[in-house]
Amino acid sequence: MEYRFSENMAALKPSAIREIFKSLSDPDMISFAAGNPAAESFPAQELSRLAADIFAHESAAALQYGITEGYAPLRAALSEWLLARRGIGKSRARGDAFDDEVMIVSGGQQGIELAARVLCNRGDTVLSEEPTFIGALNAFRSLGAIPCGIETEEDGLSPAALEAALDADPRVKLLYLIPNFQNPSGRTMSLEKRRRVLEIAQRRGLIILEDDPYGELRFAGKDIPTIKSMDTEGNVIYCSSFSKILSAGMRVGFVSAPAPLMTKMATGKQCEDVHSNLFFQMLCYRYMTECDLDGHIRDIQAIYRRKCALMSEEIARHFPAEIEVTHPEGGLFLYCTMPKGEDALDFAAAAMREKVAVVPGNTFSAWPEKPCCSFRLNYSTPTDDNIKEGIARLGKLLRARLARKE
Amino acid sequence: MEYRFSENMAALKPSAIREIFKSLSDPDMISFAAGNPAAESFPAQELSRLAADIFAHESAAALQYGITEGYAPLRAALSEWLLARRGIGKSRARGDAFDDEVMIVSGGQQGIELAARVLCNRGDTVLSEEPTFIGALNAFRSLGAIPCGIETEEDGLSPAALEAALDADPRVKLLYLIPNFQNPSGRTMSLEKRRRVLEIAQRRGLIILEDDPYGELRFAGKDIPTIKSMDTEGNVIYCSSFSKILSAGMRVGFVSAPAPLMTKMATGKQCEDVHSNLFFQMLCYRYMTECDLDGHIRDIQAIYRRKCALMSEEIARHFPAEIEVTHPEGGLFLYCTMPKGEDALDFAAAAMREKVAVVPGNTFSAWPEKPCCSFRLNYSTPTDDNIKEGIARLGKLLRARLARKE
Repeated sequence: MEYRFSENMAALKPSAIREIFKSLSDPDMISFAAGNPAAESFPAQELSRLAADIFAHESAAALQYGITEGYAPLRAALSEWLLARRGIGKSRARGDAFDDEVMIVSGGQQGIELAARVLCNRGDTVLSEEPTFIGALNAFRSLGAIPCGIETEEDGLSPAALEAALDADPRVKLLYLIPNFQNPSGRTMSLEKRRRVLEIAQRRGLIILEDDPYGELRFAGKDIPTIKSMDTEGNVIYCSSFSKILSAGMRVGFVSAPAPLMTKMATGKQCEDVHSNLFFQMLCYRYMTECDLDGHIRDIQAIYRRKCALMSEEIARHFPAEIEVTHPEGGLFLYCTMPKGEDALDFAAAAMREKVAVVPGNTFSAWPEKPCCSFRLNYSTPTDDNIKEGIARLGKLLRARLARKE
Repeated sequence: MEYRFSENMAALKPSAIREIFKSLSDPDMISFAAGNPAAESFPAQELSRLAADIFAHESAAALQYGITEGYAPLRAALSEWLLARRGIGKSRARGDAFDDEVMIVSGGQQGIELAARVLCNRGDTVLSEEPTFIGALNAFRSLGAIPCGIETEEDGLSPAALEAALDADPRVKLLYLIPNFQNPSGRTMSLEKRRRVLEIAQRRGLIILEDDPYGELRFAGKDIPTIKSMDTEGNVIYCSSFSKILSAGMRVGFVSAPAPLMTKMATGKQCEDVHSNLFFQMLCYRYMTECDLDGHIRDIQAIYRRKCALMSEEIARHFPAEIEVTHPEGGLFLYCTMPKGEDALDFAAAAMREKVAVVPGNTFSAWPEKPCCSFRLNYSTPTDDNIKEGIARLGKLLRARLARKE
C-alpha cells in the first residue's frame, strides 16, 4: 500500500528537538537540549492532596465529559488572575469595542495551533521573530502556512522589518511573538517595541499571537506590560499555560482572545479533542484558589535565577571570548552565537559525540536549511553537576574548533 | 476589528449536540441527548487508589513532558490487549507487508481528526455511513474536506453504493466507519459486509478509518471481527478510546495503524498538543495491568443491557407503532424513525418544550439541511425514573403529532 499524504502534512518532519529527546536514553549523556521545567518546580505534594480530594468528592464530574471551552470555575479564576498578573481583560472595564474570553486548551501548543488554524489558509504567510519556537513553526507548517522570520534585535522584533514584510505581502493575517524570555533567544521585547508593533497591527488589521509561556518566570529586571494588556481594538490573542508552573505533562494551557476569535477556536478545539483533561482542569482550579500560586511562582523564579547564574558563570569560565551569550532576565534558555562561518549543525553533532546535547539554531528558523552559527542551552533541567561538566566539555570543544580555524 | 477566518473554519458551526448540552442546566429537563457514559461505569475508587500511588512514587515523571506517541508501557499493554480482544496486530505475526503501531491520542476524537488531517486536502471527499458521528463529520469539515454519506442498511454500509461513490470520485482516500453499534443508528456491520468493504478498499487503495469506541460495550449477540483484524495490506486505521470504559473526561484514546501512517499522525499530534495527559496515561496503564479491566467491562455491559432493555420496553409501551426503533446489541443509543414527512428538527424543538432533549437525525448527516424524520435517544446517562418519564412524554407528543396528521 502506497500512502498519499495531504499536501499540508506530506513534507512536515517531526520536531528535531523531540527527536533528540528519544536519543537521550544514554545515561552518560548530559542534555541541555530539553525545554523541560525543573522537576522541583512541580508542587507534587499539594497536587496529590487536592487530587485525592477531587476523587473523594467530585469524581463523577471529574471523570465525565466536560465543556469544550473548559471548566467554568477555572476559566473564572484565570480571568481574575490574568487581570491581576498580566493586565489582561481590561477591555470590558475600559469600554472597548470587544470582549475578551478565556478558554482552556491542551497546553500552549494547542492555543498556538488553533489560532493559526482559524485564521490561515494553505499558502498564507505567518510572521514571527527569527529565530522562534519550533512547535509554533511546525504548527503553522502543518496547516500549509509558510513561516517568515522577521529580523529581531536585542530588544525584540524590528518594527521596520515588520512593516517591510507587510508591504511585501499585505494579505498576512498573523504575527507570532514570544515577548518575554523568548525561545530560543532568551530576549525580551521592550515596552517601546511592544507599543510600536501593536500600533502597526492595529493600523494594518494584523492579529498578534502573543505567546507567553515564560512570562511568570522573570527572575531579574522589571515586568513589562503584555501586548494584550495594551490592546484596545481586539488585535491580540494571548496564549500561555501551567506547563512551566504546575505540570507540563498534564497539558493544561489557556488562551485569552476577543470573543469572535475565541468562539471559532472553540469550534476548532471541539474537532481536535472535544475538551482538555477535566480532572487536571479541576486540579488547577483547586490549586489556584486553595494554594499559594504566587508564592510557588516565586520559588520557581529563585530556582531558575540560581541555575541561570550557574550556567552563565561556567560559560564565562570555559567558553572562548568569541562566543556571544545572552543574559536573560527569565525563562529557561541561554542562546550562544559562535563566530560567523561556524556551523551549528556540525557543532551540535560534535557535542553529541562528547555526550552533550544542544539544539542547533537552525531548528528555530523559518528557513532551517539556512546556515546558522547559534545554539540553544537549557539550564532548567540539568543538575548543577551536569551543568558544570557539560559546559566544560562544550568549552573544550569550542576552544578546539576556534583554534583550528585560526 | 473585522476578523477574516480561514476558509476551512469560516463556515463551521459548533456541534449541535454540544450546544444542546449547554442548555441542559434546567433541572427539570430530561436529557436523552448526551453521548455520555453512565457515571457508574467509571471505576473511581480504583483510579483514586492508583493515582495516589503514582503521586507517591512517580510524580516527577507523571507531571513532566512525555513522548508524543504516548507512555511506552501503556502502548505495550494496549498492543497486547488489542491483539487479545480485537484481533489487532496480527500483521507482524502473519508476515504481512506492513507493521502496525499503537499511539495514544487525546480521546478518539483526536485519532479521527489526525487520520483525516494526514490524508485529506481541502476539497477532498470523505465517505462515511449516513447518518454518522457528528464529531467526525465536523473534523472532516474543519480540514476543508467534504463529507459524503453512503447509504447504510440494517447490516451496515452498502458495498454497491460505496463502489458507485468511488466511481463518481476515484480520488477519494478515506472511508470513515463505525462498524459496532454505530452512532447514531445503533446498527452493527455484518462480517460479510466488513469483508466486502475491506476488499473494495484494498482493490481501490482506499484507507478505512475504523472507529470503534463502543466495541467493548456488546451486551447481546456475538462479537464480529474488526475490519482491522482482517487487513493484510495496511489499509485500515483503527481508533478507539478509554472514554466509555474508564473515564471520558480524561481524554485518553488510542490508534493502531500501519507505521507510515502512524508516524505522520504523530507529527500532526506534536503540532496539536505535543502529547496527551501523561498522568492519566500512567493511570490507564496501571489500571490495565493491576485491575480487572475485562471484569469491569462485563459490569458496564450489564448496566447498558439493563438500561437499553428498560428504554426499549418503555418505548414499546408509549410510542405509536408507526415509529421504527432499532434493537442494538451494544453501545449507548437507540435510533427512532418517524413516518416520512415528519420533521426531526421540529419534533426535537417540540420535545424540548416538553422538557425532553433528543438529537434530531439531521445532526448526523453529511447534508444536515436535508429533511430527516429520525432522532437519537441515549440510554446510558438518564436515571431509570427519567427514562420512564421522558419516554412517556415523548410518546404522548408523538401520538398527538401523528393523530394530527391523520
